[in-house]
Amino acid sequence: MLTKMGIAAKKASRFLATATTEQKDNALNEIAKGLINDTENILLANEKDIKNGKENGLSDSLLDRLALTVNRIEDISKGVLEIIELTDPVGKIDAEFTRPNGLSIKKVRVPMGVIGIIYEARPNVTADAATLCLKAGNAVILRGGKEAINSNIAIAQSIRASLKRAGFPEDCVCLITDTTRESSNALMRLNKYLDVLIPRGGAGLIRAVVENSSVPVIETGSGNCHLYVDKFADKNKAVDIVFNAKTSRVSVCNAAETLLIHKDIASDILPLIKTKLDEKNVEIRGCETTCKILGEDIIPATDEDFATEFLDYIISVKVVDSLCEAIDHITKYSTGHSECIITECPDRANKFTANIDSAAVYVNASTRFTDGGEFGFGAEIGISTQKLHARGPMGINELTSFKYIINGQGQVR
Amino acid sequence: MLTKMGIAAKKASRFLATATTEQKDNALNEIAKGLINDTENILLANEKDIKNGKENGLSDSLLDRLALTVNRIEDISKGVLEIIELTDPVGKIDAEFTRPNGLSIKKVRVPMGVIGIIYEARPNVTADAATLCLKAGNAVILRGGKEAINSNIAIAQSIRASLKRAGFPEDCVCLITDTTRESSNALMRLNKYLDVLIPRGGAGLIRAVVENSSVPVIETGSGNCHLYVDKFADKNKAVDIVFNAKTSRVSVCNAAETLLIHKDIASDILPLIKTKLDEKNVEIRGCETTCKILGEDIIPATDEDFATEFLDYIISVKVVDSLCEAIDHITKYSTGHSECIITECPDRANKFTANIDSAAVYVNASTRFTDGGEFGFGAEIGISTQKLHARGPMGINELTSFKYIINGQGQVR
Repeated sequence: MLTKMGIAAKKASRFLATATTEQKDNALNEIAKGLINDTENILLANEKDIKNGKENGLSDSLLDRLALTVNRIEDISKGVLEIIELTDPVGKIDAEFTRPNGLSIKKVRVPMGVIGIIYEARPNVTADAATLCLKAGNAVILRGGKEAINSNIAIAQSIRASLKRAGFPEDCVCLITDTTRESSNALMRLNKYLDVLIPRGGAGLIRAVVENSSVPVIETGSGNCHLYVDKFADKNKAVDIVFNAKTSRVSVCNAAETLLIHKDIASDILPLIKTKLDEKNVEIRGCETTCKILGEDIIPATDEDFATEFLDYIISVKVVDSLCEAIDHITKYSTGHSECIITECPDRANKFTANIDSAAVYVNASTRFTDGGEFGFGAEIGISTQKLHARGPMGINELTSFKYIINGQGQVR
Repeated sequence: MLTKMGIAAKKASRFLATATTEQKDNALNEIAKGLINDTENILLANEKDIKNGKENGLSDSLLDRLALTVNRIEDISKGVLEIIELTDPVGKIDAEFTRPNGLSIKKVRVPMGVIGIIYEARPNVTADAATLCLKAGNAVILRGGKEAINSNIAIAQSIRASLKRAGFPEDCVCLITDTTRESSNALMRLNKYLDVLIPRGGAGLIRAVVENSSVPVIETGSGNCHLYVDKFADKNKAVDIVFNAKTSRVSVCNAAETLLIHKDIASDILPLIKTKLDEKNVEIRGCETTCKILGEDIIPATDEDFATEFLDYIISVKVVDSLCEAIDHITKYSTGHSECIITECPDRANKFTANIDSAAVYVNASTRFTDGGEFGFGAEIGISTQKLHARGPMGINELTSFKYIINGQGQVR
């Protein structure tokens, strides 16, 4: 069954590869309108998912992610209109040169082809991911979670009907309706038709895709982010950044999970930080020195704490002897997402940015800025934590590849 | 055992990440000299491999690939000196911008980290790949074939001794001496320490790595390359390009394997092409029409022939009704490496280059130009036939990643 879908998506991707920006924007416009027109249908489907979710004992936060409302569908539709505003990367010439033998070589941006997305409970991803891929000229095969299957089917049907109205092959957007493990495993082996596979979701999903996929994967979203408060830190900046990076939204990958602090200023600054974090009842798990400074109610941190992405109102804290110790700690525990040094000393800032091997390395700013919108890229498909192809926020440009077009006059070698 | 090597290589990669171009060039210079000084040792080791190879019945062509001589070692050493001449991509700023909130964001080239290379019988790869990776600031874990193990050990020892003399950690270049299948399988699962894995060798090796690796892979080298002679082709160019692309070196991935020819000129040009190919005794496997035009001694082509990368003096030939049929045929059978149209009509050339989804798409030039040197990139690590990260000839730039360095003044979100 998946082979048939693969063939159909590949065929649609050939249409998309030469579609003009105007054609694609027109289709996106149809999709945005279609989602509004189909609101009733989509909400009915979503009600079924919510009912099933409640029966199956989904947590309140999962039910909240799953739930659609008239307003949320309007937001999804607006998101599609915003994608129209993004510059189409396809056709951009990245490089152009002529060789001594007269061959003229152009490096031209082209779509990836067919992109697979495996995701969990949020039905908005169905529209967000599909339309971003579409603008970059890609067909997409979506495999969402079983919790949202009725909503996903309704949204995908709406999108496919709009594509048809716009004169596009419906198979530009394909949804796998089988939500068993077999279907995601089959997708991970669809090398013949799939050019890349992007998992969006929790650590377990991402690990499963990385372990099992023979299709090239872009690993996203796992963020054990660190803040290091250097001995030359500005106190106010330190307190503000720690508070913001930890508490402004705890469930996201760019939230901070560990605070490292230089021994020379730890007893000065740690109490200030604690007072601030107390406003949000953040639990501190500290090293021995931290516990000494902050008192008895601090929970001792374990090695496992330092390796954990809490995604919660919890932070692990370690006092370090030196910048080097901070760098070593981060190198050992980081997932390569975002790390920050807070210091007023440019040399120490440079040493930190040169030695930390993460997608985004900050000096005196919150790790929460690692985000496609905040970087000015517009809509993003995820945050890559691997080094191949894309690193950090992946926008529309990262959903393209390139090819070389070589013009000759009969040259042979 | 591999975990230990992974830890050591990762540690060495941290040294390399901040090594200056001058330091790296100095180390490469030591390596080039060292290989010359160690020629006797390397040749003694190579003799063992040749002796074992003969006992194990290796083919003459494999024995030739395996054999080292004083001259070949000089060539390898010269190759290392040429890498010194390449521009160091590390530290290059790909983009730099300031956000409305004052955050200054720089996108900076950095090394990949640790690169794994799995390869077969050519011992020169041990030095070529290691030194190209090194110049890009990467540590490397090499896993060569058992046929060349003694030569590989001698070359790696020489390189590691030179690294030490240059003040570099020896573990910048690690060689796996266990040549069982277990060691390559373990390498494919070394996600914690390996940033990318590049297989270099035959189709079987590459397929095995793609199927089994959880480390990100760059697929290289499989080339079922097509030539399409359009109805508006220049006869002389057609004959020259077909002859060159098929016969100048049959064993390489950029050699042509299938000739497609428009029906309107097939009976004119096919006999000329056959006469030329006869000079090198190329076997033609033709479609029905081809057999009619060229006579009874032409072997009928099967579907399997069109799917085969012969790497030999064999070419499959098909007469097509239209440019569209040529594009469809290529889309079905191509491995995405290199394809060429021979035509004097710019519109038809543009249609071909827009619709063919391969790394290199040629107009009126031999597919044999798909090569790092021919593209002006210098030494290459392979030809990527996937769309993620790198496509086509992969030079030193493709052995790097990037990171974002963000400078703030205390910004929070």
